[in-house]
Amino acid sequence: MQHGDIRRGFTYLEPGPVVLVTSSSDGRDDIMTISWHMVMDFTPHIAISTGPWNESYQRILDTRECVICVPGVDLIDAAVTIGTTSGSRVDKFRACGLTKLPAERVRAPLIAECLACIECRLEEAVDRRGLLIFRGIGLWENPACRERRTFHANGDGTFFTDGELLNRRRQMLKWVPEGCIRF
Amino acid sequence: MQHGDIRRGFTYLEPGPVVLVTSSSDGRDDIMTISWHMVMDFTPHIAISTGPWNESYQRILDTRECVICVPGVDLIDAAVTIGTTSGSRVDKFRACGLTKLPAERVRAPLIAECLACIECRLEEAVDRRGLLIFRGIGLWENPACRERRTFHANGDGTFFTDGELLNRRRQMLKWVPEGCIRF
Repeated sequence: MQHGDIRRGFTYLEPGPVVLVTSSSDGRDDIMTISWHMVMDFTPHIAISTGPWNESYQRILDTRECVICVPGVDLIDAAVTIGTTSGSRVDKFRACGLTKLPAERVRAPLIAECLACIECRLEEAVDRRGLLIFRGIGLWENPACRERRTFHANGDGTFFTDGELLNRRRQMLKWVPEGCIRF
Repeated sequence: MQHGDIRRGFTYLEPGPVVLVTSSSDGRDDIMTISWHMVMDFTPHIAISTGPWNESYQRILDTRECVICVPGVDLIDAAVTIGTTSGSRVDKFRACGLTKLPAERVRAPLIAECLACIECRLEEAVDRRGLLIFRGIGLWENPACRERRTFHANGDGTFFTDGELLNRRRQMLKWVPEGCIRF
């Protein structure tokens, strides 16, 4: 993992990949799998939708921070396990063979096997909606990952990997912010 | 276009595809291209992030409705044109060769060439965030579309199409809501 330009942060989330969100309190780290997330601006501000049934939700409300990690499709079974087990009974890092790395500005850990990790501070919570709004404050990138394809949940137990890359940059140049080119 | 089960509605949006959002006021219809959107629950409630610089944003605040349409990748150039031109100067439907169809419960039109369209009512707006929260009230599906792959914006002028379909339904059965199987 190495530092990346935070201006590129939103480009990891805008395509809508499944992400792994780490949080930490009382010396205990946990992970949740989320595909209900949204970029809100280029800062980036990032929204996540979950709710009080989710153990990570309360931990993030308490600690006001998390790390949003983007796994490649080699981690699909880890993501499914994380999404279908409870962190109060299982150490999800150990169960899935994932490696914690210290973040720089938050206590929640990075996941070494992911393509990218974004350190986030909670800015606002709309509790009755289960809505969390974060500000991304630091990007980590992992150029060593061989599997670069992310994956997208269809919500019915199936997923699509990234497929063909299509370039329309020439037509969109005026709308592509500086510092964000990734492909 | 034919009626679909609204319980399947979220499965079109959860993977994070680029969507086309129609709105209508004073007899004038328009479209915007959005990839900053998020499923919030299985109803589905759906969030969109945009802002006052966007002409559709004000129209949706006024009329409190829209249609969220999911294009296949055969419409990528239409989506780019829609996202980079102003509806006050161009009839985007005509410019992109898109066909309007009447929706059932809102005035904004369906787009006949899309894979699916979700009629939506605005439930809540957080103006200072440019955040719109909708309730999907009707699903239309288009089984006649030959190109079934959606596409995902990377935010840097490039896009990924859907790639390989991976099935983890067996592991996730307890978490897959009834009526939503699509693949």
